[in-house]
Amino acid sequence: MKIVSVVEEMKHISRSLHVENKSIGFVPTMGALHDGHLSLIKEAAKYNDYVVVSIFINPIQFDEKKDLLAYPADILRDLEIAKKIGVSVVFKPTVNEMYPSGFCTFVDTEGLPQNLCGSNRSGHFKGVSTVVVKLFNIVKPEIAYFGEKDFQQAVIVTRLVKDLGMDVKIAVLPTVRADDGLALSSRNVRLSGLERGDALCLFEAIKNAKMLVASGVTDATSIKKSCLRIINAKKSVKKVDYVSVVNRDTLLDVPFIDESALLAMAIWVGETRLIDNCSFAECIV
Amino acid sequence: MKIVSVVEEMKHISRSLHVENKSIGFVPTMGALHDGHLSLIKEAAKYNDYVVVSIFINPIQFDEKKDLLAYPADILRDLEIAKKIGVSVVFKPTVNEMYPSGFCTFVDTEGLPQNLCGSNRSGHFKGVSTVVVKLFNIVKPEIAYFGEKDFQQAVIVTRLVKDLGMDVKIAVLPTVRADDGLALSSRNVRLSGLERGDALCLFEAIKNAKMLVASGVTDATSIKKSCLRIINAKKSVKKVDYVSVVNRDTLLDVPFIDESALLAMAIWVGETRLIDNCSFAECIV
Repeated sequence: MKIVSVVEEMKHISRSLHVENKSIGFVPTMGALHDGHLSLIKEAAKYNDYVVVSIFINPIQFDEKKDLLAYPADILRDLEIAKKIGVSVVFKPTVNEMYPSGFCTFVDTEGLPQNLCGSNRSGHFKGVSTVVVKLFNIVKPEIAYFGEKDFQQAVIVTRLVKDLGMDVKIAVLPTVRADDGLALSSRNVRLSGLERGDALCLFEAIKNAKMLVASGVTDATSIKKSCLRIINAKKSVKKVDYVSVVNRDTLLDVPFIDESALLAMAIWVGETRLIDNCSFAECIV
Repeated sequence: MKIVSVVEEMKHISRSLHVENKSIGFVPTMGALHDGHLSLIKEAAKYNDYVVVSIFINPIQFDEKKDLLAYPADILRDLEIAKKIGVSVVFKPTVNEMYPSGFCTFVDTEGLPQNLCGSNRSGHFKGVSTVVVKLFNIVKPEIAYFGEKDFQQAVIVTRLVKDLGMDVKIAVLPTVRADDGLALSSRNVRLSGLERGDALCLFEAIKNAKMLVASGVTDATSIKKSCLRIINAKKSVKKVDYVSVVNRDTLLDVPFIDESALLAMAIWVGETRLIDNCSFAECIV
């Protein structure tokens, strides 16, 4: 496994692979790899000649310095995991390599609603869009893999790739969950024992919402109220950023559950921000 | 010569050329081709296997609808010129092909000062940056050619290509002038006889400024005052957008003339906006 820190070296590798007519599957991450990432890497390995994983905690997508500093990082463990699972190249640039002095160009999907994970985090998705475009230009993948947990990110990346005419396919894979249902996230390692228990409220809310829909409830307001009841019952939940039912393509709020509706939630458990979501296609009666 | 209107077809051609290891030189234009464009095309032909010229009047870089509607267009003449000079492919997409319904992603060099041609035309360079990134992704050139007349555009494009890690070299070629010194521009065809005469004030201002610098004047304020005197003496000059002396890399105003200083001017002659600029490296005493 190659470990690359320099943009020009990574570009050189990507170009060489293309000259040899090899396809590149790309999994962009912020490190602290977990089974969710591994499912993306395995899928990338299945359909591509080479798998490139980037590990880069992108400062411009954090609006709170505290959140950035607290983001888990364990690069040695990550490299070990990546090597074991058969990653071809780990691209782990420094902040200065990605954003050298004078950097000033940003990409933004201005027309998409700045709601959900965009509303309480000004500039978050502009930071995501910018780094994704830059990483795609450097790694030049045929397919890039994203997790459904970050569904809004996937919608935005899919949009910008189409809008800017970029040559990369976006694959979105199902959220991977712990045995008890908690969606895997790099941030989970920061939860205390009590918080880890309370964090399950997101999955409980999802199960409950699906049950309601399966029993014939289609009113989004009732669903959201029921989710909030479950979430707010937990002592460690310090704040609810949003509990929304939106159209999965437009990201706009919808009043009723249908095949394209998505329940999306973001909450703070202690000092840790967690998100989760689900759709209802299989339980609509 | 191939004429292509569909994004996917253009992409297919670019990809095929790369597979054959052929290099692409790209000249993005808004049509109404003149000798300035032809100098770019000739240079592109000299250093690349294929030359692609795009003809696209980019609506999102016009902040005034009137200016957009008045922009000269003569596609049949353009195609004839392109064919005669040996262009390989003309890419002339429709607005709907470039910006289909739902399009919402923009690129902006936010950190560069929004002065000069940016200050009176909100969103102009965001429109330029966005279309340039999209055209580069579609045409995939090794080298793209721009004229020095639009020096601010060249600075911005050079910046965004570097910032976003795009694989294209930016070549900036000297402004081509008519025999009497008027910088060639597609907009010149809109000038009446009287206006055409008065438009020469830009070149007169440049000659005068160079003479002043050659005689030892280095104070930017004196240079600008002298330019304004020449420009404002012309009856058809309806408005001066700016007469500035800036650093050619940072675009920031500078108080004294040195090797990196650039005199940049934008004025309205009748209903036509004209720009011109010069540097002083060769006349500093």
